[in-house]
This record gives sequence, C-alpha cells and structure tokens, in this order.
Amino acid sequence: MNTLREALFAPQSVAIVGQSNDVSKTAGRPLKFLRQMGYAGRVYPINPGRDSVLGERAWPTLAALPEVPDHAYVVTSSDAAVEAVAACGNHGVKVATVLADGFTEAGEAGDQRVARLRAICKATGIRVVGPSSLGIVDLRTRAMLTANAAFDEPELPAGRIFAASHSGSMIGSLLSRGKARGIGFAGLVSVGNEVDLSLGEICEATLDDPGIDGYMLFLETMRNAEALRRFALAAHERGKPILAYKLGRSEAARELAVSHTGALAGEDDVADAFLADCGIARVTTLDGLIEGLPLMMRLRAPASRRAAVGVVTTTGGGATMVVDPLSVQGVSITQPSAETLARFKAAGIDVKPARIVDVTLAGARYDVMKAALDILTTAPEYDVILAVIGSSARFHPELAVKPIVDCAGSAKPLAACLVPDAPDALAMLSEAGVPSFRTPEACADAIAAALRRRAPRPAPKQVVRPAPGGGRMLDEVEAGALIERFGIPRAPAVVLDAGITRVPALPFAYPVVVKALSAEIAHKTEAGGVVLGVANDDALLAAITQIRANVAQRAPNTRILRLLVQPMVSGIGEALIGYRVDPAAGPLVMVAAGGILTELYRDRSLRLAPVDLAIAREMIGEVRGLQAFAGFRGRPKGDLDALAEAIVALSRLAEEPSVVEAEINPLIVRTDGVVAVDALVKRA
Amino acid sequence: MNTLREALFAPQSVAIVGQSNDVSKTAGRPLKFLRQMGYAGRVYPINPGRDSVLGERAWPTLAALPEVPDHAYVVTSSDAAVEAVAACGNHGVKVATVLADGFTEAGEAGDQRVARLRAICKATGIRVVGPSSLGIVDLRTRAMLTANAAFDEPELPAGRIFAASHSGSMIGSLLSRGKARGIGFAGLVSVGNEVDLSLGEICEATLDDPGIDGYMLFLETMRNAEALRRFALAAHERGKPILAYKLGRSEAARELAVSHTGALAGEDDVADAFLADCGIARVTTLDGLIEGLPLMMRLRAPASRRAAVGVVTTTGGGATMVVDPLSVQGVSITQPSAETLARFKAAGIDVKPARIVDVTLAGARYDVMKAALDILTTAPEYDVILAVIGSSARFHPELAVKPIVDCAGSAKPLAACLVPDAPDALAMLSEAGVPSFRTPEACADAIAAALRRRAPRPAPKQVVRPAPGGGRMLDEVEAGALIERFGIPRAPAVVLDAGITRVPALPFAYPVVVKALSAEIAHKTEAGGVVLGVANDDALLAAITQIRANVAQRAPNTRILRLLVQPMVSGIGEALIGYRVDPAAGPLVMVAAGGILTELYRDRSLRLAPVDLAIAREMIGEVRGLQAFAGFRGRPKGDLDALAEAIVALSRLAEEPSVVEAEINPLIVRTDGVVAVDALVKRA
Repeated sequence: MNTLREALFAPQSVAIVGQSNDVSKTAGRPLKFLRQMGYAGRVYPINPGRDSVLGERAWPTLAALPEVPDHAYVVTSSDAAVEAVAACGNHGVKVATVLADGFTEAGEAGDQRVARLRAICKATGIRVVGPSSLGIVDLRTRAMLTANAAFDEPELPAGRIFAASHSGSMIGSLLSRGKARGIGFAGLVSVGNEVDLSLGEICEATLDDPGIDGYMLFLETMRNAEALRRFALAAHERGKPILAYKLGRSEAARELAVSHTGALAGEDDVADAFLADCGIARVTTLDGLIEGLPLMMRLRAPASRRAAVGVVTTTGGGATMVVDPLSVQGVSITQPSAETLARFKAAGIDVKPARIVDVTLAGARYDVMKAALDILTTAPEYDVILAVIGSSARFHPELAVKPIVDCAGSAKPLAACLVPDAPDALAMLSEAGVPSFRTPEACADAIAAALRRRAPRPAPKQVVRPAPGGGRMLDEVEAGALIERFGIPRAPAVVLDAGITRVPALPFAYPVVVKALSAEIAHKTEAGGVVLGVANDDALLAAITQIRANVAQRAPNTRILRLLVQPMVSGIGEALIGYRVDPAAGPLVMVAAGGILTELYRDRSLRLAPVDLAIAREMIGEVRGLQAFAGFRGRPKGDLDALAEAIVALSRLAEEPSVVEAEINPLIVRTDGVVAVDALVKRA
Repeated sequence: MNTLREALFAPQSVAIVGQSNDVSKTAGRPLKFLRQMGYAGRVYPINPGRDSVLGERAWPTLAALPEVPDHAYVVTSSDAAVEAVAACGNHGVKVATVLADGFTEAGEAGDQRVARLRAICKATGIRVVGPSSLGIVDLRTRAMLTANAAFDEPELPAGRIFAASHSGSMIGSLLSRGKARGIGFAGLVSVGNEVDLSLGEICEATLDDPGIDGYMLFLETMRNAEALRRFALAAHERGKPILAYKLGRSEAARELAVSHTGALAGEDDVADAFLADCGIARVTTLDGLIEGLPLMMRLRAPASRRAAVGVVTTTGGGATMVVDPLSVQGVSITQPSAETLARFKAAGIDVKPARIVDVTLAGARYDVMKAALDILTTAPEYDVILAVIGSSARFHPELAVKPIVDCAGSAKPLAACLVPDAPDALAMLSEAGVPSFRTPEACADAIAAALRRRAPRPAPKQVVRPAPGGGRMLDEVEAGALIERFGIPRAPAVVLDAGITRVPALPFAYPVVVKALSAEIAHKTEAGGVVLGVANDDALLAAITQIRANVAQRAPNTRILRLLVQPMVSGIGEALIGYRVDPAAGPLVMVAAGGILTELYRDRSLRLAPVDLAIAREMIGEVRGLQAFAGFRGRPKGDLDALAEAIVALSRLAEEPSVVEAEINPLIVRTDGVVAVDALVKRA
C-alpha cells in the first residue's frame, strides 16, 4: 500500500465509520454493496452502538481494529464525521471519504468544520474525499465505497472510463445510463465539496492506471481549476481524452451552484474558454456525455484543422436530423469528391452528388452499405464517417448495421446513429467498439464537441498572485503608461492643472477631448467628466469649468485637480479589449465589439491569458460584430492584425502579478493600426 | 363508405397494386403487414405476372376484382404507378397512396409525371397520398398500408396520437420510439411529396375522429402552408394540440430538403414564425417530439401569460440539468412563495428557499415526495410542476416515482424527468398518463415548446394574390406615397428635374440629401446615387451633376431624369421594417435593428401579416438591437410605440394583393415618432 491511487481505488482494507444495520438507510448501504459486489479486501464496519451490523461483526472504534485500514468511508453526520476523520488521521489511515453535508454550503458552522478538516489533513497527512461525497468506487477491485442507491446493480458495467462528478446523485445516473448503452467504467467518484482532494487531483491519481482510457466529468462549478488544468494537460500527454458536461449556462443554474455547494459561480463563457484551453471537450446533452467518449478515443489526437465529416444513410430525413444541429454548430459536412463519387458509380451504387450520401435508392442492404463504408472510410477528403441508419436497424440489423460493425477497424473513425428505437443494434455496435448514438441530438453534440477540441495550451509559468479582493484603480495617465509599456498604442495626451486660467501650447491640433483625471471615477462619462469636440482655448477652459461643476454635483466626494486633454481620434469603428484574473479560471483576455453591441449581444471571445497572435486572430473571428471590420459589404477594412497584436499585448499582463484587471474601451480600429483612447487598470 | 377519412383510415377493402411475392422486397411488405396485424377488411393483391402472392390469390387487374376497393396502395415504380392511379381513378377508387419516387424531385421527367397525376385527380376525382409515401396506417382498424420495415412489430402501440411526416422512414421511427416510451398512435401517415393531398389536408380529415387527442408532425419543408394553417386553427378549436419537429435550421439541411423533395427551402425563422402563428408548438429534439404531447394535452389551452414552472427534486444536480436549458430558453422557474414554504415547514419537510425545491435532505421517501407534490400542485404561483427524480427511480420507484403517479389527477399539469436509466419507472409514469421524459434535454425542450405556444391567430381574410415571380419596383416617390397612404410617416420630399440649372425654393431648409429617382436602381448608395449633407443651392446643382456621372458609370443602362431632395433627418437610431409575400408562408412582416446589425447578428423578428399593436410590441421586444432604444444604460428612449404603429401599418399591405414586397430602410427612430427616409416597394 503505497500510492494515493491504491488507497483511493484499490484498498486492501476499508472501514465504514457509522455503518448502519438498516439497509433502507443511506448509512446502511456501503457494507451491503461491498458484500454484494464481492470486494475481496477486508471490511471493518464501525458502529459503537452495536455488536453486529447486517450479520457481521461491528467494531466499536478504529483503535479496536486488528490493522490500520487503507481507506475509511465516514457515513456519520457532520460533526461526528469531523471527529471520525481526526481519529482516522491520528491512527494513520491514508484516505477518508466523507458522506456528510454541512460544510462549504452551511454558513459559519460549515466554514468552521471545513477549517477543522483542513487542519486535520495538514496535521496528520490524511487525505479527504468530500465532504458530501456519495462515494468512490472501483469496478475492477470492487472497492464500492458508496451510499448511492443506484449501485444496487445486479451486474456492474465494468470498462475503461473513469467518471468524476460534483453531483453525488449523478455517479449513479452515469453508471445506469452507461450500462444501458454498453458503456463501462473503471471507476467513479463523487468528489463532493473538494475541501481537500479536488476533482483534478483525484483524476490525476488515476492517470497511470493502464485500465483507464478516458475521462467523463460532470461539473457543477469551476472549483480548483488549476488542479483540473494540470490533470487535463497530463491526460492529453497520455492520449486519454476528457469529456465534460458543465451546468451553469443560465442564471438559475448558477444560483443553484452557489446554494448547493457554496462555490463561486463564474460566467459560463469563462468556463467554456477554460475547458477549451485545457483540451477538455464539452457537451451540452446528458446522452452526449454518456455516448461521446468512444468517438474521442477513436479520434485520438485533437483535430489540427477544421475536420470534415462524411455522412452515409438509409434515411435522408433521419440523417438530416443529425446534420442540421451539426451544421448549426459549425461542423463541416462535406460532399464526396468527384473521385469518391466515381468509386460509388463503379461499385454500382446510385448516389446523388450531395452532402449526405443517401443509399436509399440502392437499398438498405448489407452489400450496399458495406461497399459505401469501404469507399468513404478510405476517401481522403474525410476525417470522420457517420452512418445514420433508418427503420431496418430495428428488426434487421444484419442489413445496414452489421456492415458498420464489420468496418469497426477501418483507418478512419466511424460512428453510427440509429433513428428508430433499436436497442439490439445499439448493443451490437457498442460491443464492437463502434461509437454509437441513440438520438440525433446526442450524436451531433458529441461529434461537434470532439471536433471542436484542440490540444491544450501549455500552462503559463506560475506567477504568485496576491489574494483576491481589494486593489486600487490607476488614474488614466498611469493606466495609459502601463498599457503603452506593454506595446499598445495610445492617443497622445497632455495633463492640465484644474486651476489654469491660460491654456499652454498643445502638442496636437484642436478639436480635442477633455477628461477628468482621477482614479476615483471609473465611469467618467456618466459623472459628466468628459467633454468632446473642444474647438479652441476658450472652449477648453469652459470645458474644465463644466467638468468640475458636473463632478462636484454627481460625485461630491471627488475633487478634480487635473484634467487630461487628447486629440479627437477617429477610425472606422471601435473594439473593447479586456484582461482580468478570474478567481476560478485565472488570467483571462477578452475581445468584444465596441459600444453597446458588446452588452446587447454579449458578443465576445475569451481565452486564458497569455495568448499568441494565432489565438488572438481566432478570437477576433469569433466576435460577430468585429466582422464589420473585415470588409463586410464593401465597407473599409479595419486593421485586424493590429487589433490581434493589441490582444496579445494586453494578455501579457498575465506575467504582471500586480495587475488584476485592465480594460481598453474604446480601442479605436483604423484602416491602419489601432489606438487606445481610454484605459482602466486595477492593481492588487 | 363516404368520407375521405374513412377511405384513408378505415377502408373496408384495399388493393395492393404491384404486391410482390418476396417479403424481403419493399413491395412485398404491405400484404404481409396487413395479414400479420389482422386487418379485418378485404385485401386484393394485384400482380398480373402471378396467380398467387404470399400464398394468396393475386388478381391480374383492378377490373378483375369483385368490387371497387376503397383505397389502393400502389407500390409499382414511377411510370407504372401513374398508370395504376389512372386505372384506379377511372374505376372509382376513392384514394390511392403512391410509394414510387421519381416525381417532384426528379427534374423534367418527374414534373411531367406530377402534371399527369394532377390531371388524373382532376378528371376522375380520385385523391392521392404521395408519391414517395411509405404509407398510411390506422392502428385501430389495422389498415396498415405501409412498406416501412419498422412496422414489422409484434405488438403495435395503439393510442390517441396521430402522426404525419414528410419523411417516410420517420413514421417507423416515431412508432418504435413511441412504443419504447409508452406513447401510442391512432394512426400515422408518410405524406410524401404532397402532389395532391397535403399533410394539412390529411390531418384535417382526421379532426373529428374521437380517438385522436393530438398531433405529432415531422416536417422537412413548409409546403402547402395554407392547408396546414387551416388544419391548425381547426385543431385548436377542438382542443387538440399539435407538436412539430422541423428540419432546416442549417443551410446544409435546407439543401437536403431541395434535393430530397424538390421543395422550396425557406428560411427557418419564417417557418418558426409561421408555426407559432398557427399555434403549433415546435421542438428541436426527437425525444421532445415523442414525449411532448402528453404534457400539451394536460396544459389544454395555450398559456395566456408567462407561465411559471415549479421544480421539485431528489437530485439538485439532476434537476439543474433541466432547469439550465429551460432558463436559457426563457422559461421562468419560480421559487415557492412564503406561504408555500410555510406549508413545507408545517409538513415537516426541510427545504431551502430556492428556485428548485430540493427534498434530498428530507429523503427520497414516498411520504416526503407525496406531501411535496400535494403542496406544489395546489400552490397558486405555479402553472406546471416538474418532478426530477434521481437514483431511487432505478430500483425503487415506490419511493419517489409512485407519489407522482398518485398525483396524476392533480389540478395542475405535473410532469416528470428521471435522471438515471429507469425504464420501469418511466413505463409506470406513461401508464398513469403522467407526461414523462427520459432526458433532461427532451424535458426542457418539450416544456419550453409547450409554454411558448400561443393561441393561433385567426387566418386573415383570403386575398387572391397574383402568381409569384416577376413584379415591378416602384420608384421612391411612388413607394413613399404608398407607405404614407398606409399611415407611415415619411420625410418630406421634392422632385427635381435632372436638367435644371436653377434650384427652385425648397419647402424645407438646408442641409438636404439628394437622391437619384429611378425604379431601376435598387441600391442607390452603391450606384453613387446619393449625396448627403448638401448645404446650399450650388452644392445641390453639383450633387445632381455628380449623381448623373456616377450612375452613368456604374449603371450605364440607367438614365437619371429626376432626383429626389429631402431634408437631412436625424434621430437616435434606425430600424428596418419589411413586408413580403413568402411563397410558402404567405404575407410576412419583419422588424430588425437598422444598419449592419441586422445582417451581422441576423437579429430580426417575423410574423405572419397583418399584425396588431400588441404583436408589433412583442416583435420589438424580440429584437435585441432595438433594446438600445428602450432606455438602455441611460440612453435616450426611442419612440417604440410609433415603431410598433409603423409595423402594424406596413403589415396591412397583406390586404393589398398587388404588393409583393416592401422595405423601409432606414426608418429613423426619434424620441418622438418615426420617419421613413427610404422605401422600396415591389408590385406584382
């Protein structure tokens, strides 16, 4: 017994602290499941109130046991659980998994329990899964440390996927839905509130397990993102794909994450950017999560370019049900090349030149579908082949489903979607290792997620950042100097004293803009602190008077001592670029269309910072409003290269630990270059 | 034998023209299925080449039969099928269903066959289903006129839903998937290419069938929209809901609709507006289509206001999987009121005040869930209650699923979603008539579709419209006069002769805009036909010269004889409103944010025209870009009432059959009123 992995998944002895004698209770299940599944190790039920539980000897305390168990599942309630973990730690138990709630989500009393648990871990070296963990199970060693009722399975679907979930209930649902679809698991864990061991760390412990080929994650939040990223990078190096479902696309769901787990609920596009940058594919359907990994395992490496999908079908309408959502998600469904069509003709298969190869006219027959698949899986224009099979799949899988099974070993990944209810044919496909899908939506979801996946970007060098909270806004002169130092062009500026009665010679021509210069005013325009189009010296003095009066009225506690004067800068439009250190995901860079568009359409692109030029260009391509600068409808083209350079420059703030937030709004986009005319920077 | 319905669904005798002796062939199946299912009527296989087929007497011709069959299923190939229909028509057969393809999708030869079929219908009075119809079946009379292999079912799921599909393969998939989910059918029809009887007409024929409670539609296109609308309105009057899935959200899918059926593939938001205005709910998942109708039947009338959904669960994470997509689709998930929470407390059920009523702490027990459902189904703040059940549903439906069954008769619609794989519990729910869902996505899809549904708007008075194609653009003066007549304010204008050498006195002040006045130039700005900001008489003469020179160069065939002069009109922004007669959906009115936004974000709202003020306001609320005029971030408010009035006015063009298209772009939005500064109108 050496490694964390062994203690977690292959313990030679386990204690169930608080095992009940009543199997209808949650605390009664662990022993039942361990025995039912035939766990070969030694099991010690601990229950000081009884001599026996479920017909076995019960032990009064940990100290009374004949050995130190490798892993303890603590199923007592909150405060008793903390004491049990302390006893385990003092006794030398390596890992305790804690079922009780009453920790991160339970206010002050919960926070005290969390602090105590962490102190116990630190003092004794014990590692904790949970609290609020419905368990951790290994389907090979049969170490079933779980209280989830769904594990009362007559036959467990053992396989090569490892599943980790924030939701305890979901490990049962993943198991049963996987079983129904011929998807098997090496192990599953309900990570609970991750007070000690995080989801990323637990998965990391399994990385070198040769029985695990891929990971299925059910995420409610983005806690402990750094460990998740470290795990994702290491999994990628080992060629083990990760597929995730994450809650929180809506405000309502984020609210739940907070009340349910006490976690911070970040914005969903931040999570999206984070997962993408980690090389983790993200699905939005439960079936897509269950059914998606076999396809990712076949695809091996993430696509290096836009992948092309070839579709062959015996049902035009059914195939279109997959193609429609795939296309909406930007996946390219490609018509066969002239050469490929010629091969169909030579094989005597009548197909029209169209995106979907519809063999309905040739017939749903073995020889037709087999020949079609042989042609498509060797056609150079495709990266993935999808077969969508209609009615015959239900009662005659030998016609159009069997050929897919017989092509399972083809050089190109081959997936299948069955349009009727056809459980036998699905089982046949799963058995043969063919990625297969029960619904068009799950099929499109999983294929799109798999093809969107990119290789993870290497983690940036670790920077020690100050604790979040607090911080100080720079004034516009300081902010401008900082962004200029990072290489972003800014408009020239002169600082004037608020008390001047004569305007000095300016280094640029009128008209100019006059702005209050104060770190205390974040929204200068709304405070009346900006006057545009100032035409001459007299107007400038009047503008100063006006700004002071406005600010005195709207922000009475702020005194304007200095003003900033800049030339009026015009271009063909504007963009917004921003940088911030997200509490979960870390440094992020963002680009959006400028002005009201950003807010009305929530039209922005995010990445973990720093980024390089190629990624900055990708980001620009993702913002629809910025296409107005790409020569849209004969409009003048904006200098998108300069915009990309500005994004790269701003993203390098990630190397400047003292900066927690920066925003350039607007960044004027010209036909030649970009110019920052306003900047906000917040230092820790 | 009198009605079309009886001939279609309850024929007393049927002929199978072209019945094959080989059951492995498509043309061999109809007789097999009729016998297998125990059809009680008389069956006449017609096959001139054989004395017997499948062990039964085969007849050489229709004329040889001892009676005139009510319905003939013609399973011969294209040309032979046309001749068979002619023979049926001449012989007095009421309805023929045609399996063959080779019609609307088959180019010129196909068009000739279509014309001939229509001529036969007209001359003989026979009605035709198809061609390309995989059949029409009634599960009660066992009139199984189908060649779809999926009907080879040992036990057919008879029930109270009627399904109609453009795709022939799909009727088999709807049947088998329905069966798997306890959803039964009264009948199903594959309508094929609708050369004679359309989907709407066939469904209309079933409206007074007391055994049908609702309709399930699988649409590939929007053909014969008028009949569909007529059917939808009549179904609504009878309280029979219609649920539709429609392909064509992507370009790739629209391409298929064209190649597959020869149909016009309209824009998807036009179809969406059409279905909504017909009171037809639209889902985007196949499971949502299968599982959605029971909920709609429970909801009876469409919601008259924004409905509130109450959610109770034994799995917070699982419930959030439903709440997340529901919220993204704008469905309101409501926290229990203080009164309702007090009732939970009084019942001894510990729930936190949150949108999702999570009874996990109280336990997944019968008494807890039953009490929770009794409270929620009688809480006045809710319109629909959804129960999301976790792990216990798999092996212990008696705990949290049975209470749902026992509340099936509650006053409020109650639906269930099961998170684990739990086929027995699902069957229990379906059996009890509780709307239930296998996946969170189908559940959210169906609930959102059901709650989005509104009562259909009465069809406008029928207007005879000229055939599509052709038409003539009005010049801007004519167009302006027309829209003004319909009540839309426009900028004042003066027409000048291109040859003038002195400018007459203008009825408005400089600066003005000068525009080429010609019906031949649709895009005046791109032809150099517009000069803005003209400051005085000399500049106006120069502008005329410039416009003539520009147009002479860019549009050499157009001579500019007259020009339009208008004052420069400014406002706080612009909108675009449009009207057109869609070939499928009929008259439509549209509003969009002005300028480049409309195109970049495809941000527009459509309705069937005409509309009233309430609907015009709804449309404005659906265009995100127009929220900029609603007082967004302290900006001046635009006169959205005036914009709504302009939409209503433009929509009244539906009563003017000679107008096929009109667009006002831009319509300047001011703080007080709106002004059209340019208008395009096309007359038939």
